[in-house]
Amino acid sequence: MVDMQPFAERFFAAANAKGGPVCVGLDPEPGKLGGRSLEDWSCMILDAVAAHVPAVKIQLACYERYGAKGIEVYERIVNHGHDRGLLVIADAKRGDIGISSCHYAATFLEGAHAADAMTVNGYLGADALEPYLDSAHQNGAGLFVLVRTSNPGSDSLQTLMLEDGRRVCEAVADMVMHLGAEYVGDSGYSLLGAVVGATKVHDLAALRQRMAHQLFLVPGYGAQGGKAKDLRACFHPDGRGAIITASRSVIYADDVAGAARRFRDEIAEVLQ
Amino acid sequence: MVDMQPFAERFFAAANAKGGPVCVGLDPEPGKLGGRSLEDWSCMILDAVAAHVPAVKIQLACYERYGAKGIEVYERIVNHGHDRGLLVIADAKRGDIGISSCHYAATFLEGAHAADAMTVNGYLGADALEPYLDSAHQNGAGLFVLVRTSNPGSDSLQTLMLEDGRRVCEAVADMVMHLGAEYVGDSGYSLLGAVVGATKVHDLAALRQRMAHQLFLVPGYGAQGGKAKDLRACFHPDGRGAIITASRSVIYADDVAGAARRFRDEIAEVLQ
Repeated sequence: MVDMQPFAERFFAAANAKGGPVCVGLDPEPGKLGGRSLEDWSCMILDAVAAHVPAVKIQLACYERYGAKGIEVYERIVNHGHDRGLLVIADAKRGDIGISSCHYAATFLEGAHAADAMTVNGYLGADALEPYLDSAHQNGAGLFVLVRTSNPGSDSLQTLMLEDGRRVCEAVADMVMHLGAEYVGDSGYSLLGAVVGATKVHDLAALRQRMAHQLFLVPGYGAQGGKAKDLRACFHPDGRGAIITASRSVIYADDVAGAARRFRDEIAEVLQ
Repeated sequence: MVDMQPFAERFFAAANAKGGPVCVGLDPEPGKLGGRSLEDWSCMILDAVAAHVPAVKIQLACYERYGAKGIEVYERIVNHGHDRGLLVIADAKRGDIGISSCHYAATFLEGAHAADAMTVNGYLGADALEPYLDSAHQNGAGLFVLVRTSNPGSDSLQTLMLEDGRRVCEAVADMVMHLGAEYVGDSGYSLLGAVVGATKVHDLAALRQRMAHQLFLVPGYGAQGGKAKDLRACFHPDGRGAIITASRSVIYADDVAGAARRFRDEIAEVLQ
């Protein structure tokens, strides 16, 4: 880890410095890398966006598919991102129990290639998240639990209605809120945040209210269809509370730096 | 892949040959490997159990924590398991959307180090599982969706009651049943199976009934507290339908081969 200050504080400072609470997602597809190697392409993106955005999110699936070599690239680009002054979120979506959760926390949040935050899956329950909380707390890292994902089919489970009147995603939100309560820092935000898809426009305000102390990681902006004006609802009135993420609309642009800057400005404008 | 026959058929044949529908879980903990390297220890376990059980389940978290080197070990032990005539289940519990799901399917089910089956997380919904289904179908592989996990805290979400009278885990079970319906093979089993914890004794019979065409992967036997007699409910009357998994009670035994044999015999006896 770069330092032990909580992730939310570090993110807010970086977002102030760079001009907007945004994040560029690295989801490299074979065949779309313009003839570059995975590592060269990834470093090119990091170099292009570093001056314009506070954070990047690395989609582990895109690196894992290359086996051990892909993991080596992942580890090096985490460090390259840090060298460029970027916060790095490992989009690993891990979810396991007991000691296996400890291992995953160690893999992504500890050691020489530690990211600043990671995404986790809460379906296994509160006890399965505790090892991540311990590790993140010790390392000044952030965690983002999948609450409401951006894919069209996420309703299959996440919007089912419970007998107590909540929907499944709201029950997950409540679990996140309760579990995260003891990890709220001076910023007013817990180290335990939530993934809330930009495409689920009608849910954003209610989830924001439900998880007052959670930082939201909001994927789905741009290519997936999320619109800037709708995303105001992810933020508290003071303009804090969310990290808006764009991937394809930035990383495959002809001018990556320009696309990152425009994306940041679109979000910053909404927060004026 | 070893061949294109569906996973369930291959598992049933192997279970017949080895004398019981069981699986040994490799969850290596640092400090418990008797001074061996991760790879030597893993191969020792595979060699010791190969004559006695049809399958092994590899907990990816335990290998990923060693970074690229751990992935190299994982890939080699998948092949070592195959060389010893074992079916290999990648316990990766991945869950992502769209192209990222394709990448994870490719990582674990395709290429030179393909496992025979993998575990996946269904919280993201039906569309997020489709890329795994396509890959598994093409490669004769199996999939196991987390339905009811063995950890004490799995009730936080999985047993919440829906307004339609189902519990959340039953809604996931229904999603698995519906999604898997078009992938039912000659054996009567779908390539899409379910993870159902051995510790959730009171749920086993109802989930068995609800997912008639799903092969169950049942962790939690032995050290986690699951008992053999309770596990009859995971099987159909003909003695098929589940893969009972033990990890710590076998892999840390003084006599690993003997512990694997006894475990297999305990399960086989229940099915008599």
